[in-house]
Amino acid sequence: MMFLQILFTLSFLFSSSNALDFCVADLNAPQGPVGYSCKKAEAVTVEDFVFSGLRAAGNTSNLKKSVLRPAASNQLPGVNGLGISAVRLDFAVGGRTAMHTHPEATEVVVVIQGTLVGGFISSANKVYLKSLKEGDVMVFPQGLMHFQINIGESQALAFGCLSSASPSVYFMDYAWFANDLPTHILQETTFLDPDQIKKLKGVLGGTG
Amino acid sequence: MMFLQILFTLSFLFSSSNALDFCVADLNAPQGPVGYSCKKAEAVTVEDFVFSGLRAAGNTSNLKKSVLRPAASNQLPGVNGLGISAVRLDFAVGGRTAMHTHPEATEVVVVIQGTLVGGFISSANKVYLKSLKEGDVMVFPQGLMHFQINIGESQALAFGCLSSASPSVYFMDYAWFANDLPTHILQETTFLDPDQIKKLKGVLGGTG
Amino acid sequence: MMFLQILFTLSFLFSSSNALDFCVADLNAPQGPVGYSCKKAEAVTVEDFVFSGLRAAGNTSNLKKSVLRPAASNQLPGVNGLGISAVRLDFAVGGRTAMHTHPEATEVVVVIQGTLVGGFISSANKVYLKSLKEGDVMVFPQGLMHFQINIGESQALAFGCLSSASPSVYFMDYAWFANDLPTHILQETTFLDPDQIKKLKGVLGGTG
Amino acid sequence: MMFLQILFTLSFLFSSSNALDFCVADLNAPQGPVGYSCKKAEAVTVEDFVFSGLRAAGNTSNLKKSVLRPAASNQLPGVNGLGISAVRLDFAVGGRTAMHTHPEATEVVVVIQGTLVGGFISSANKVYLKSLKEGDVMVFPQGLMHFQINIGESQALAFGCLSSASPSVYFMDYAWFANDLPTHILQETTFLDPDQIKKLKGVLGGTG
Amino acid sequence: MMFLQILFTLSFLFSSSNALDFCVADLNAPQGPVGYSCKKAEAVTVEDFVFSGLRAAGNTSNLKKSVLRPAASNQLPGVNGLGISAVRLDFAVGGRTAMHTHPEATEVVVVIQGTLVGGFISSANKVYLKSLKEGDVMVFPQGLMHFQINIGESQALAFGCLSSASPSVYFMDYAWFANDLPTHILQETTFLDPDQIKKLKGVLGGTG
Amino acid sequence: MMFLQILFTLSFLFSSSNALDFCVADLNAPQGPVGYSCKKAEAVTVEDFVFSGLRAAGNTSNLKKSVLRPAASNQLPGVNGLGISAVRLDFAVGGRTAMHTHPEATEVVVVIQGTLVGGFISSANKVYLKSLKEGDVMVFPQGLMHFQINIGESQALAFGCLSSASPSVYFMDYAWFANDLPTHILQETTFLDPDQIKKLKGVLGGTG
Repeated sequence: MMFLQILFTLSFLFSSSNALDFCVADLNAPQGPVGYSCKKAEAVTVEDFVFSGLRAAGNTSNLKKSVLRPAASNQLPGVNGLGISAVRLDFAVGGRTAMHTHPEATEVVVVIQGTLVGGFISSANKVYLKSLKEGDVMVFPQGLMHFQINIGESQALAFGCLSSASPSVYFMDYAWFANDLPTHILQETTFLDPDQIKKLKGVLGGTG
Repeated sequence: MMFLQILFTLSFLFSSSNALDFCVADLNAPQGPVGYSCKKAEAVTVEDFVFSGLRAAGNTSNLKKSVLRPAASNQLPGVNGLGISAVRLDFAVGGRTAMHTHPEATEVVVVIQGTLVGGFISSANKVYLKSLKEGDVMVFPQGLMHFQINIGESQALAFGCLSSASPSVYFMDYAWFANDLPTHILQETTFLDPDQIKKLKGVLGGTG
Repeated sequence: MMFLQILFTLSFLFSSSNALDFCVADLNAPQGPVGYSCKKAEAVTVEDFVFSGLRAAGNTSNLKKSVLRPAASNQLPGVNGLGISAVRLDFAVGGRTAMHTHPEATEVVVVIQGTLVGGFISSANKVYLKSLKEGDVMVFPQGLMHFQINIGESQALAFGCLSSASPSVYFMDYAWFANDLPTHILQETTFLDPDQIKKLKGVLGGTG
Repeated sequence: MMFLQILFTLSFLFSSSNALDFCVADLNAPQGPVGYSCKKAEAVTVEDFVFSGLRAAGNTSNLKKSVLRPAASNQLPGVNGLGISAVRLDFAVGGRTAMHTHPEATEVVVVIQGTLVGGFISSANKVYLKSLKEGDVMVFPQGLMHFQINIGESQALAFGCLSSASPSVYFMDYAWFANDLPTHILQETTFLDPDQIKKLKGVLGGTG
Repeated sequence: MMFLQILFTLSFLFSSSNALDFCVADLNAPQGPVGYSCKKAEAVTVEDFVFSGLRAAGNTSNLKKSVLRPAASNQLPGVNGLGISAVRLDFAVGGRTAMHTHPEATEVVVVIQGTLVGGFISSANKVYLKSLKEGDVMVFPQGLMHFQINIGESQALAFGCLSSASPSVYFMDYAWFANDLPTHILQETTFLDPDQIKKLKGVLGGTG
Repeated sequence: MMFLQILFTLSFLFSSSNALDFCVADLNAPQGPVGYSCKKAEAVTVEDFVFSGLRAAGNTSNLKKSVLRPAASNQLPGVNGLGISAVRLDFAVGGRTAMHTHPEATEVVVVIQGTLVGGFISSANKVYLKSLKEGDVMVFPQGLMHFQINIGESQALAFGCLSSASPSVYFMDYAWFANDLPTHILQETTFLDPDQIKKLKGVLGGTG
């Protein structure tokens, strides 16, 4: 009886609705600057902390011969508010991720299979380029343009993590050429020739 | 006598070397992830909190016909650790800032003189574009590519602030073309043609 | 067809409702400790990132002969969650901002027109005072009392930024004299004479 | 009339719904990673900033002969979002807090009455142990296991603060023995003998 | 032998100089925006986490008949970097803390002995005032002016915590009257009469 | 010539010593609460961002038949200040990580080879337990006790990331039994029997 009393006392004083061990994303509730609202404690299950959608290789039948798939708040709601998420990167032979940044996250990548070149460029315009083998870990600091290229003769696999529960993936070429940003503005704010711009707008579905 | 005692007591209990009202950058001491080490309290003067280097228009005799000059930790050591700094932007007729990001800062810009177009692109590839008159304020969220173009018939002036005491300015074209990043890698990770890449490497001083 | 597939794949994997490029304030949704809930991505427009309400000088026909007007979350919802906002300060001849703090923000001010004296006081009771000309930048660290005085012979204009998207402006004299804080409490917790307190309560609309 | 105008202007420009002096918890509104949604400003009263539930000693008639009771967001909604809360610790003769951590908070404890031993263990497995008298202050760093033991001959009282508005209290023995974690898993992941595990599951109400 | 091997392996892989369980202040090493440099792990002892300087009542023979004494980084180096510290407040009969803020910290106060009135004022100029008995907890949000008054007939004691390891204590009257801030500037930026200003400069040791 | 001028201007205005793209750890310079001091920009190379020490399986010939090896600030100095690091986990048949926490970091783990059970326990004493196959991702929230067990018939491999550049690994049993914490204190603050405590102190090298 005494033990029941103890347990009751403890749960009364520090109810789980107060303590923020975690804040599993309620994907249908308001989202704020640092993440989604929390699911009610009683609705949280272990499934909120596990994502099985990255078991198989992704479809690399695309222009870049690569695909990246996240395990972030939307897929793995348990990471909400915890400042971290994961990503799987598959590369066909000759595949590469296009030049991109994560505007608010650093990425750490581990090569699981194959040989990649990883690279990023600092705001001092210095290139950091390295050939990576299985088991190598490379960090790509927040907001800097980076890429990975499969330089091996078979498909490659890497897993990464990002220092955000809901990181953006921001491809430079899509941002420039896959929308209606007028050609003359692109020309004035880059050094690209109008012909190059128009060609790539055609390829990536942009207009203007 | 009692008042002297009070003053002594107070200064003894809360000496200025402990309280962190501010942490003026000691530019010669170790720098850490969130800024420079602090100057000794007794060495701090009002000059650490004022920067007069932005009184006159900057030199816009360059390819972009614009110049941006910061008042950040290096120029205004009083902002160290406080997460904010300022910048002056001058534009000749036809001038524009090239496409760039601040990898770890949001920018707020106020147009002081002239008419600018401000634009940025989200990671959903959506373009946010707006003509700005004197007194207009525009925000460019952290890590997103943005630019300003002087569309008026005289020179233009703007002041901005950044949500970092030591913000990077990260020009996409310099990062791509003003270094030794091999042309074939640029080609593979962007959609650009080798001829375009080589031409711009020539213009911006890159090799490879 | 392949390009459509690519675009579909990308938008599926990193939907804009997940990635937090920005969190434009939904002024009618719940507000939390770090800001408002985010507007739905599809409702966001460039107007959320631009504020045109500061084009003209503000009305300085008041006791202080100055006015400050913000471009913060309520006026410029695009800054929500990004830790920065702007402010316009107009001063008639002889105008000044009253002694005030921003309890959770640092301010950086640029003088656009006229000559101001800027000042702040540290918790070591040291005064930092400086005459500022057009183009000068001054920083006022978080939580410290500060003021600006137009010491020129014409009206003055400055723009500032604050390291918060929703900064408070906290005037010492309003806090002391424009409410019902009992005179005897004010007397005990400051060194002010009751007559002075009562006179200023009369001026600023306070009681008690 | 002019003063009314001033007051109107100020309240219009910096309405309390925008400025985040504080964000009193609305315990019925969505909770996010950094706390509860804010109560409407007009509903906030001084009662939100005061908690009187800790005036009397708590009930120490339990196995540990101690009780800890918080003044956190749920009891003192004014701390929401401010990263701090308080706690009262009562100890009968021979009482002690069980080995526990606060997964996301540092604790500072002041002994008010009696003599305690305070202890914590670092991740380098070093023990920090100290006898504490009335008025002594001890800090228990974030996430580290710690405890207090009443070594005096009368009841003891301490007050503490935690660097979180909603800190968890995480008792190691409850976490191990008061649930259905299978005995063989506990055995494999600790060095404990099955008999010890089963005995304690019996005492604390666990199964499996 | 195997155990020694395990221990060696663990200490090699996660040496204490890397893991940041805590960062005890090295008061002689560089201080940065978030605190002091860390003592070498081997120099850290339990004394770094305990402060015994607050056992006895402080000297309240001063103008305010009160004294506040901190247990912050300078006295209790173990709190460095952990965002929390403690403070002891003693009040003689009729004693009170003068109107003050903590520019970068929230304070939580517990009344240990006596009866106090606690009060603070928001930036909306609203007064939050409450009579506090032994055991009552009151929170004073970051950056807001506040005070405590002993309204009982004997001396009073309170302990508080602040959400900073090195909090400033910022007394409004010392900041205004205990330095060389010119009287005419004070007059222009407050509503105070020159006579009142000069009188208080005299009392508190100011000039100008 | 003009281009050289541009380049000179840019490098003058935003020198790399100011901009904080990254802060590579200088392992011999002062360490502060958020990480090591930064290496001079000119000393940084791509090797600071790559760690090749995790290519091969670790030595699992120990009591737990598992080993975890980090790629954190000490091994991969480029992560310093960026709030993320990586870890490799190898498990022999029957291997498992002992019950542990990371006092200031969340962990995300991806199973690369084999079948693991992952588990953690909340402060509400609820067990979250899940069998994980290759490609599965599981998150272990900050400060909560967790473990992984190889339940397959061959060795297993996982990679993880932690939301800290210098995460501690905090094993409960080492903290309790591998030091001189007196048996009677352990007994009083846990529910363990003295015999069990003494046995485990013997196994893990503790005394007292």
